[in-house]
Amino acid sequence: MHDDFLDRLAAGDPSTLARCISLMERGGAAADLVHRRICPRVGRAAVIGFTGAPGAGKSTLIDAYIAALRGRGASVAVAAVDPSSPISGGAVLGDRMRMRRHAEDPGVFIRSVASHGHLGGLSESMHRIVDAMDAAGRDFIIIETVGAGQSEVEVVEIADICVVVNAPNMGDDVQAMKAGILEIADVLVVNKADRDGAAATVREVAAVLARTAAGRNWTAPVLQTVATTGVGISAVVDAIATHHETLAATGDLELRRRLRMAAEIEAIAVGMLRRRVRNTSGEKSLDALAAAVLAGRLDPEAAARRLVGEG
Amino acid sequence: MHDDFLDRLAAGDPSTLARCISLMERGGAAADLVHRRICPRVGRAAVIGFTGAPGAGKSTLIDAYIAALRGRGASVAVAAVDPSSPISGGAVLGDRMRMRRHAEDPGVFIRSVASHGHLGGLSESMHRIVDAMDAAGRDFIIIETVGAGQSEVEVVEIADICVVVNAPNMGDDVQAMKAGILEIADVLVVNKADRDGAAATVREVAAVLARTAAGRNWTAPVLQTVATTGVGISAVVDAIATHHETLAATGDLELRRRLRMAAEIEAIAVGMLRRRVRNTSGEKSLDALAAAVLAGRLDPEAAARRLVGEG
Repeated sequence: MHDDFLDRLAAGDPSTLARCISLMERGGAAADLVHRRICPRVGRAAVIGFTGAPGAGKSTLIDAYIAALRGRGASVAVAAVDPSSPISGGAVLGDRMRMRRHAEDPGVFIRSVASHGHLGGLSESMHRIVDAMDAAGRDFIIIETVGAGQSEVEVVEIADICVVVNAPNMGDDVQAMKAGILEIADVLVVNKADRDGAAATVREVAAVLARTAAGRNWTAPVLQTVATTGVGISAVVDAIATHHETLAATGDLELRRRLRMAAEIEAIAVGMLRRRVRNTSGEKSLDALAAAVLAGRLDPEAAARRLVGEG
Repeated sequence: MHDDFLDRLAAGDPSTLARCISLMERGGAAADLVHRRICPRVGRAAVIGFTGAPGAGKSTLIDAYIAALRGRGASVAVAAVDPSSPISGGAVLGDRMRMRRHAEDPGVFIRSVASHGHLGGLSESMHRIVDAMDAAGRDFIIIETVGAGQSEVEVVEIADICVVVNAPNMGDDVQAMKAGILEIADVLVVNKADRDGAAATVREVAAVLARTAAGRNWTAPVLQTVATTGVGISAVVDAIATHHETLAATGDLELRRRLRMAAEIEAIAVGMLRRRVRNTSGEKSLDALAAAVLAGRLDPEAAARRLVGEG
């Protein structure tokens, strides 16, 4: 790595940023080295997470949010978690992204991140990708994920602010997902607000929020939008901006960033430990231990202790 | 723990099984002890995983599958991953489960498992819960999850056989999710097959399967069902049974179970390591390390190495 790589990154060159992110995703010693060099340059960007049940119109809402940010002259980078897998092509979200209206705008950098196949876990990769985007001088970094799984919730919590997107009249599974992600919301959006049932959905999420808001010093506003026509978008932009200013003024932003750094260190550490476990060979290899347990010579806990060097 | 606890578990007593699972979920030394004692008694049950994009009608299909198994005299246990959170009540799926028609049948044991809040991760808990159900003599264990996230895919892979449920005409996010989970399918179901677009969905998933089937010695059948009326259910029951017999005859079942045991040991080991990392205090505590990184005195990788005792 030459210093001019870092200079081009700091200058915001999109192809250098893309290469840097690919390096972060691959991991290894080179990624560690680059990450160490860019760390002193991070901390300037506002990191906004968007998550929501599938079908809530999250992508359209983010598109409208990006347009509003661009209208105010801000540069944007998007890291979108792609729930499709690299093995089966992973192209579904990729295709969808290429169709987005901002794909040709150099002020908008969009990157799709596979949710599967990260040995250290999705969190470890995402922390580094956000750091790279931050070091590249983007004003706003948007983390986008379909907020359905445990890992995906962890990922969106990397953001300074989490926006949770809902829509009226979704199925049972989606109802359950909604309940699981509401509690991380700083700003709550009920999209497709022109549909039947929107008022009921607003009441319902407000009721859940009221139960989970205890002990927090910010009550998440519940905003209604019709992302396809732009209705309500400016209120979302303002709510995010106001909340970010409040966080900065109260010192909560600094606190959140320390918690985020703690989570990043933990993610890297767990990744290191997981790789150590997988690379163990010989009698202490996973395969040999599994065979011993199945043969009744060992129990799973004892096998695990041997694996981590306690047995 | 007394031996009569294990005897009552082995006799299939539902309240003993429920207590055993609660113990497994809490973790700790008592859970380790009980797990060690039940391990020699596991390996008899057929473990079937069901996953699918939200809204595909997975729960209704599982209900029909359970009815078919009960009709053949088999006992059943269901471990359903609840994507709603314990903090906000986690009651959404719970309510839905109570409405199920099998809730009053002692031959069907249903347990909802929170997807959030497992320090060791959902996988570690689910392995143990399946072991408890197996030791309790259930013929079939069904793992149910909304197949959306990284952790949820890992969980359904605990099963001997994975059934992936789809439906026609779902949104973009759902399309992407589908692509991510198709490759783990042993049996593929297109539910709601009476709807427009069913034939197109069948062609589409068959095309994805063809791309991912290379190197596997089982081609996942694509079956059509209308779970609400029972159409196509017996073909699903037969396909699962046939595939299970084939796996047993070829030795692949034994291989899968060794891989599953390796995954279980790894999940326990990673849980141990994660707890070790979180319990570190003093200068090497996460909080102190995060503060040092933010102050520029350390980089995240070096902090992680200190945390795992390599720095």
